[in-house]
Amino acid sequence: MKVLITGGAGFLGKKLATALSADPKWSEIVLFDRIAPVGLPEDDRFTIEVGDIRDPVQVGKLVTNDMDLIYHLAAVVSADAETNFDLGMDVNLKGTHYLLEAARHSHADPMFVFASSIAVYGGDLPEVGDDQTIITPMISYGVQKTMGELLVQDYSRKGFVDGRALRLPTIVVRPGKPNKAASTFASSIIREPLKGLKAVCPVTADSRMYILSPRKAVDALLRGAALPGSAFGWNRRLTIPGKSFTVEEMAESVREIAGQKAFELIEWKVDPMIQRIVGGWMPDFDASRGMQLGFEADESIQSVVHAFIEDEIEYQN
Amino acid sequence: MKVLITGGAGFLGKKLATALSADPKWSEIVLFDRIAPVGLPEDDRFTIEVGDIRDPVQVGKLVTNDMDLIYHLAAVVSADAETNFDLGMDVNLKGTHYLLEAARHSHADPMFVFASSIAVYGGDLPEVGDDQTIITPMISYGVQKTMGELLVQDYSRKGFVDGRALRLPTIVVRPGKPNKAASTFASSIIREPLKGLKAVCPVTADSRMYILSPRKAVDALLRGAALPGSAFGWNRRLTIPGKSFTVEEMAESVREIAGQKAFELIEWKVDPMIQRIVGGWMPDFDASRGMQLGFEADESIQSVVHAFIEDEIEYQN
Repeated sequence: MKVLITGGAGFLGKKLATALSADPKWSEIVLFDRIAPVGLPEDDRFTIEVGDIRDPVQVGKLVTNDMDLIYHLAAVVSADAETNFDLGMDVNLKGTHYLLEAARHSHADPMFVFASSIAVYGGDLPEVGDDQTIITPMISYGVQKTMGELLVQDYSRKGFVDGRALRLPTIVVRPGKPNKAASTFASSIIREPLKGLKAVCPVTADSRMYILSPRKAVDALLRGAALPGSAFGWNRRLTIPGKSFTVEEMAESVREIAGQKAFELIEWKVDPMIQRIVGGWMPDFDASRGMQLGFEADESIQSVVHAFIEDEIEYQN
Repeated sequence: MKVLITGGAGFLGKKLATALSADPKWSEIVLFDRIAPVGLPEDDRFTIEVGDIRDPVQVGKLVTNDMDLIYHLAAVVSADAETNFDLGMDVNLKGTHYLLEAARHSHADPMFVFASSIAVYGGDLPEVGDDQTIITPMISYGVQKTMGELLVQDYSRKGFVDGRALRLPTIVVRPGKPNKAASTFASSIIREPLKGLKAVCPVTADSRMYILSPRKAVDALLRGAALPGSAFGWNRRLTIPGKSFTVEEMAESVREIAGQKAFELIEWKVDPMIQRIVGGWMPDFDASRGMQLGFEADESIQSVVHAFIEDEIEYQN
């Protein structure tokens, strides 16, 4: 069986590919991205495809007639899509549409798992959102992800693909370097001090975020494909359970686990643009439907930090 | 001042053009459609443009640098978009995007009024929806209108256009002949008997619909452009107030106003596809925000029918 991961050079794409490779049923795991992935484990089943998701011809060729499962992770992230509007529209909306069209017209009727984001929520938010909360995104990234979800939903309803749009919480702790997501600091303020490096926190300490660790995010992507379509019913759009923490709680976990010196590497300096974007995000969510479907949040902020240390720091040493 | 109406050959486009022509401030009223409008009153200020909204070059030329206001009514209607999926995507999603792009890049910063539809609502609906009801469309037309709303919202937030997405109830009584909208029967069962013609009602008598007369729909489109952007605030998506009636109440109004013979011209014969689509629509709505913004529903089903007689039957005689 064959699986495609777009955004395969991203940290989540690589972790997902590695997790999938543990299952011998996958005879080929195709990683597509605009650059080749770096640091992927050795496995003969990995195929690297470098290309541009904005090109419908390339995307059409990517979805071969023997493709069983597509994970669509490729995206222009939040702050980047806000600054470069056309790029965001081209990659996040048109790219998703091209990939869905390719899947629709392939002979294999592939399953289509779309990585959406809680950035679809915005506007007049409740303190705790739930599965009935109206979706009024206030950043272009969220608008484009909402439109992607709607396409996945309608393509599934029409029987063009067996789709699932999984709305991921903010992923913390991301490994590697900061990216152009407005949320990147939430990882930096944990990751950098644990490595003995400085990090700037651009939002106030009481800012609240709804987060999920990379481990649990990979679990969610695997579970999203393992569930039968009937488990989702007509509604293929789902918020994945996460946990809500203040930035202060996140910083305190650094002090608790790595000590006062590590904690003091965090510099607090508000960036109004980031504060505005993050302040407009869903602070907490009652993800009842996701929990009923067996998706699992992290236990605590400490478990999130320990998982990062195990997977990224100890693994490197 | 100059105004553009896409879908200008449709009944609503023509009524809107006629209403706009009463205001001398409009020096040119451009009606764009794939065919020329028929039965438009004589007015030197009307300019007819025949073309294809699926062609971004044509759409780009349409939005001249002196265009002050754009009414985007052109659409592939519900049952048609359900049968011809690609046509619906091309006209309803891509066409809307092309027009927004043309408006964004014109020098006049035009106001953009998008005619959306309560067909955006679907799924597990409450008995009475409201401005906080989650939008989970269950037909492709509703999905495409939702995506159009999201684009209008984001283009407005970014300052590309001064947009307003007005979610119109089902328009009853439409003049002329039945179209490919799943809701077309709601007009037919009133219009045809009043003209002494037979009409088929493809849904059960207890089916409930949220409707608005053409007169009030034109009023809503005028009001949507007359309000300052500040009246809408950040949320440029708005459900226009209508009234909820059962199909039985609609048929009874025919008996009351035109007599038993007219009523007996209605043949009751359920079409499962139409019943399924209409059964999935919003049956009633508390349009508080729209009412606060001064939009007005019809008084009664009788006033809806009388308006049709005055505007369409007596006018013709």
